[in-house]
Amino acid sequence: MAQRPLDIIHRALDSNVLVELKGGREFRGTLKGYDIHMNLVMEAAEELQNGESVRKLGHVVVRGDNVVLISPNLED
Amino acid sequence: MAQRPLDIIHRALDSNVLVELKGGREFRGTLKGYDIHMNLVMEAAEELQNGESVRKLGHVVVRGDNVVLISPNLED
Amino acid sequence: MAQRPLDIIHRALDSNVLVELKGGREFRGTLKGYDIHMNLVMEAAEELQNGESVRKLGHVVVRGDNVVLISPNLED
Amino acid sequence: MAQRPLDIIHRALDSNVLVELKGGREFRGTLKGYDIHMNLVMEAAEELQNGESVRKLGHVVVRGDNVVLISPNLED
Amino acid sequence: MAQRPLDIIHRALDSNVLVELKGGREFRGTLKGYDIHMNLVMEAAEELQNGESVRKLGHVVVRGDNVVLISPNLED
Amino acid sequence: MAQRPLDIIHRALDSNVLVELKGGREFRGTLKGYDIHMNLVMEAAEELQNGESVRKLGHVVVRGDNVVLISPNLED
Amino acid sequence: MAQRPLDIIHRALDSNVLVELKGGREFRGTLKGYDIHMNLVMEAAEELQNGESVRKLGHVVVRGDNVVLISPNLED
Repeated sequence: MAQRPLDIIHRALDSNVLVELKGGREFRGTLKGYDIHMNLVMEAAEELQNGESVRKLGHVVVRGDNVVLISPNLED
Repeated sequence: MAQRPLDIIHRALDSNVLVELKGGREFRGTLKGYDIHMNLVMEAAEELQNGESVRKLGHVVVRGDNVVLISPNLED
Repeated sequence: MAQRPLDIIHRALDSNVLVELKGGREFRGTLKGYDIHMNLVMEAAEELQNGESVRKLGHVVVRGDNVVLISPNLED
Repeated sequence: MAQRPLDIIHRALDSNVLVELKGGREFRGTLKGYDIHMNLVMEAAEELQNGESVRKLGHVVVRGDNVVLISPNLED
Repeated sequence: MAQRPLDIIHRALDSNVLVELKGGREFRGTLKGYDIHMNLVMEAAEELQNGESVRKLGHVVVRGDNVVLISPNLED
Repeated sequence: MAQRPLDIIHRALDSNVLVELKGGREFRGTLKGYDIHMNLVMEAAEELQNGESVRKLGHVVVRGDNVVLISPNLED
Repeated sequence: MAQRPLDIIHRALDSNVLVELKGGREFRGTLKGYDIHMNLVMEAAEELQNGESVRKLGHVVVRGDNVVLISPNLED
């Protein structure tokens, strides 16, 4: 059975995720929520550049239309 | 239970929020309202550059499709 | 109770507003109408650059998808 | 009573309008029709640069999603 | 009575049209069909640069969301 | 009777087509399928630059919102 | 009978796919899921530059509106 994209996002709740946005921006944090538009809620969110934290944002809502990809595990 | 994005925005009403728009613009102000498109109402809104206020806008309606993220707490 | 974005726009009817469009353009004028897409009608509209009027447009309809923000009061 | 954007466009039928498109292009001509998407029909349409006619297009249909603003009166 | 944009396109069937796309590209050819999205069918289509044919495409379907304007008569 | 855009695409099934995408990319291949969004299926697809094949992609699904035009016959 | 785009994606489940995104980014990995928006789930996903792996992402959800093309077989 295929994995539905929103199910994969659901399973990532409360775990650490990498989120890439249009324009190349990257965020890392704990996924706390989402909706069908891929609007996301993250806690302890940090913006990354070249894999390094450059800014702490804490609790954040990301509007889904900016999302390029969501990676539940950080293997880089 | 997951946090729904619009619920997080709702809980931020009357508190200070950081709003990032497409193109890298940032605004800070008191969140006074929103709708399902993430159109936002802010009071005492200021535009920021490098974290510094560069312009006072006061009462402002932001059209939701410009929003990248909304951060209810300013931890930077 | 939260302020709904379209209600704030409604209350601004017949008063002076600042409208910012995508790409950084700014207009000032009297808000005379709007619809749910945030299409706007302004009278005595002027385009601004650095806060100075650079062009008088008079009566104008702005298509809503260009709007970034609407500020009913001009506190800068 | 507020002026609805499409009503203002309707009233401009058969008169001269200025139409600005995304990317800064400007057209002037007689508005002959429109629909709810702000698709427009113009006659004797000319493209302008710096307010001067640089090209005559005659009868033209403009797709609404390109429109930034429509000004029924040309006060510049 | 106002001219509806799709009616004007309909009347242009089997005649020569100029089609401008986003990004400044221009095509000329015989309009053979369309739909409500302004998807277009052209025959003997040629791409133009500075009004000169630079490429013959023959039978072509243009996706409507690329269209800026359609001019049924070529008065330049 | 007008040619409907999707009918023209349907008739091109199993024949060689040229597909242009936003940003100027071009692909050539055998059209094997499509849907109402103009999502396309091609076989033996190749990417072209200046009309020359620069990359073989084989079986490929193209998301319709990237499509600028589809030309069922290659007359250049 | 024509091949429907989503059927081709469905058949590619559990096999290696090349995914190109807007802006020229490329990813390779095992397709594990999708939905009607072309949101994709990939496992063992790697980002490619010039055909070489430059980054391992592992399990990843790609938002469909970023997708340009999906190629179930890698013939380059």
